[in-house]
Amino acid sequence: MMPFEIPGHLEVKNGHLHVGGVDTVRLAAEYGTPLYVTNEGRLRENYRRFAAAFPGVQIFFAAKSNNNIVVQKILAQEGAGADAFSDGEIYLARLAGIPAEKILFTGNSKTDAELRYAVDAGTMVSVDSHDELIALSKIASAAGREVRIGFRVNPDVDAKAHPKLATGLKKSKFGIPREQIVSIYKEARDLPGVKPVGIHCHIGSQILETGPFAEAMGKMMDLVEQICGFIDLEWVDLGGGYGIPYQKGAKTPTPQEWADAILPVFDERCRKLGIRPELHLEPGRYIVADTTVLLMQVNTVKRSGSNFVATDAGFNTLIRPAMYDSYHEAVVANKADAAPADTYTVVGPVCESGDILATDRKLPAVRKGDIVALLDAGAYGFCMSSQYVGRPRCAEVLVHDGQAELIRKRETYDDLLQNQIVPGRLL
Amino acid sequence: MMPFEIPGHLEVKNGHLHVGGVDTVRLAAEYGTPLYVTNEGRLRENYRRFAAAFPGVQIFFAAKSNNNIVVQKILAQEGAGADAFSDGEIYLARLAGIPAEKILFTGNSKTDAELRYAVDAGTMVSVDSHDELIALSKIASAAGREVRIGFRVNPDVDAKAHPKLATGLKKSKFGIPREQIVSIYKEARDLPGVKPVGIHCHIGSQILETGPFAEAMGKMMDLVEQICGFIDLEWVDLGGGYGIPYQKGAKTPTPQEWADAILPVFDERCRKLGIRPELHLEPGRYIVADTTVLLMQVNTVKRSGSNFVATDAGFNTLIRPAMYDSYHEAVVANKADAAPADTYTVVGPVCESGDILATDRKLPAVRKGDIVALLDAGAYGFCMSSQYVGRPRCAEVLVHDGQAELIRKRETYDDLLQNQIVPGRLL
Repeated sequence: MMPFEIPGHLEVKNGHLHVGGVDTVRLAAEYGTPLYVTNEGRLRENYRRFAAAFPGVQIFFAAKSNNNIVVQKILAQEGAGADAFSDGEIYLARLAGIPAEKILFTGNSKTDAELRYAVDAGTMVSVDSHDELIALSKIASAAGREVRIGFRVNPDVDAKAHPKLATGLKKSKFGIPREQIVSIYKEARDLPGVKPVGIHCHIGSQILETGPFAEAMGKMMDLVEQICGFIDLEWVDLGGGYGIPYQKGAKTPTPQEWADAILPVFDERCRKLGIRPELHLEPGRYIVADTTVLLMQVNTVKRSGSNFVATDAGFNTLIRPAMYDSYHEAVVANKADAAPADTYTVVGPVCESGDILATDRKLPAVRKGDIVALLDAGAYGFCMSSQYVGRPRCAEVLVHDGQAELIRKRETYDDLLQNQIVPGRLL
Repeated sequence: MMPFEIPGHLEVKNGHLHVGGVDTVRLAAEYGTPLYVTNEGRLRENYRRFAAAFPGVQIFFAAKSNNNIVVQKILAQEGAGADAFSDGEIYLARLAGIPAEKILFTGNSKTDAELRYAVDAGTMVSVDSHDELIALSKIASAAGREVRIGFRVNPDVDAKAHPKLATGLKKSKFGIPREQIVSIYKEARDLPGVKPVGIHCHIGSQILETGPFAEAMGKMMDLVEQICGFIDLEWVDLGGGYGIPYQKGAKTPTPQEWADAILPVFDERCRKLGIRPELHLEPGRYIVADTTVLLMQVNTVKRSGSNFVATDAGFNTLIRPAMYDSYHEAVVANKADAAPADTYTVVGPVCESGDILATDRKLPAVRKGDIVALLDAGAYGFCMSSQYVGRPRCAEVLVHDGQAELIRKRETYDDLLQNQIVPGRLL
């Protein structure tokens, strides 16, 4: 048996890891590896569980965590809006069926072309700087439009997240500093083409405590208090960052626990101020991370410095362990009920020492040809993958009702050459 | 003036940064940003300078550092072979005109399909493990071929490089441990389908001293001494890792200084052993890094925690600063002879605090619309880029004889959807 309990929507049958009732070993044989396998049922459950804990709250799925069009279509069916960080994410979200009025265009560095795109599409915009406010006002008024905006503010909350992911500290690049909030809302109120109706923050990612959210909610309401006298506030967006237990057995807050920390602060402060804006939240990882496993085949096993299991997926396919020292549980999918036999370090096929997927894990005896599954690969997985080291990007499969459907074809050599042009004189 | 001297092949004319005689501000306007701009002349010069310092040495360009087909075509014209880390890199190198016998298929985790591809193509193979040796022997002999191989060995040398890039330490995932070398060469000698003719190592990347190379050369020759009695050794491959001065003013070894450290050790030990194998080297970064600048447009300038300049390129476009804390010089291309006015931190448009390109740099007063050039972006630049945050990948331009040619078209929204399939029931 594995040294941890398999999460609920995964099962072990006949010694094989199953996702949504489908044998992952069979999927690896049929579709090849590396392969991302996403469980539609789990995706819908996660969304519903989160939404149920926050009645009356509008959920904007953080598209950056997984911008697969199928994933977004499913979430659109569930009623999600989108937190889109680029014109490309607006495009994908709209194509997935999310209405423009449920899309918030976030982002700390938007080009004029992106702002024009958002104006034309009719999304809301979270404005991150004075430069952006002026640009958006000009672009929207030239187009005869009035864009509903909020400002991304920097609440200066320590999210206790990975330093690369803590976005709400005073020194971070994001948002309007607190001392400039009143003046910029007043300026925006008087500018053409923009209508300030919201306020927005995002304090970080993979946050595992409720405290930072309660603190951020309180600080946001302090700011709301400063502006609600002259701004007709329609929404307060507390952003995302809700973490998941990558390490099985870890105790992390449930959506209900987050709600219990956030909602009373919001409700109480609204009551005192005599206002009733909508609350918006932007979960990403929480909704998608555990829906997906990454299947990889073992190319070689060798004992040198460590006991290495070298697979066909590296940080070109899943960058989180190499970039953020992230932890993902590893399961030998074709030996999922075998007892651990040794300690292994699972590495990828990239020419860098940092290309390690899982360090010192107790696994059954691993052999060439085995299938290793990395769990919780649905957030910041495929969307961060690259063609580094000349490797075409991998395929994605959706499982639903015990059936598998290919939702992204594996790239080929051709895709490595795409858009490249060799000048005639060099041929 | 800039706080550092502009490297030789770049110039400032009329206040604008020029690459290979071409105005980068004009290129940004014409092709848009972000934009990688590569100087063909500099590429050829770098190759020739390196090759001239190592007469009689065969150079295998480390394709992973830049697998643009045009860059590889130019290097093929100059006589380079290729160190290819995947079947995709073999494909690109051959398409670029590099003959199979000048391609070494390296890699710590090769699939059977990749080995079959290399056998069919006729490349040499650097074998990284016993599992791989057995697989290659079976695949080659089934195809009636005999593949010329070397083993990647682990010389246990501290390259004094970034921990993620130090690949020759005993605990790294790469290569055959030293104590297994003799037995694996003997085994290979007696296996069908493979002919051991070489020995290979690679100690790391962006190495800035000559000492680790001299030490590695010595340790490699210790191993050669153990096997040359029963192996007819045709080549010794010392790998790559030759660093460049990302920080201008830094003193780094010249190719001649590297040669002076490496060649006497090689020559003397060969003389003593009475053998004369070829020496192979695998420079990548040294050849391509300084050929290329990355042009980015400023979307916003704001003072919050720091003085932030937010551009349209982030770690989706150039991951090195975010992933390895790498340093790249930043130049305001349209104000390249203006005096520094303030200290700025240049950031990208990715929703992570770690998306910083250059920290606390003295720059002229920066305004929205300015063009910032990051220097030395030719190695591990475009090839590591992704579509993260829904951003299509950028364009690449080659400059040559004062002219610019588009060598990679900018991606569009369409490319974000490429290969994706939405099941009919979800439409």
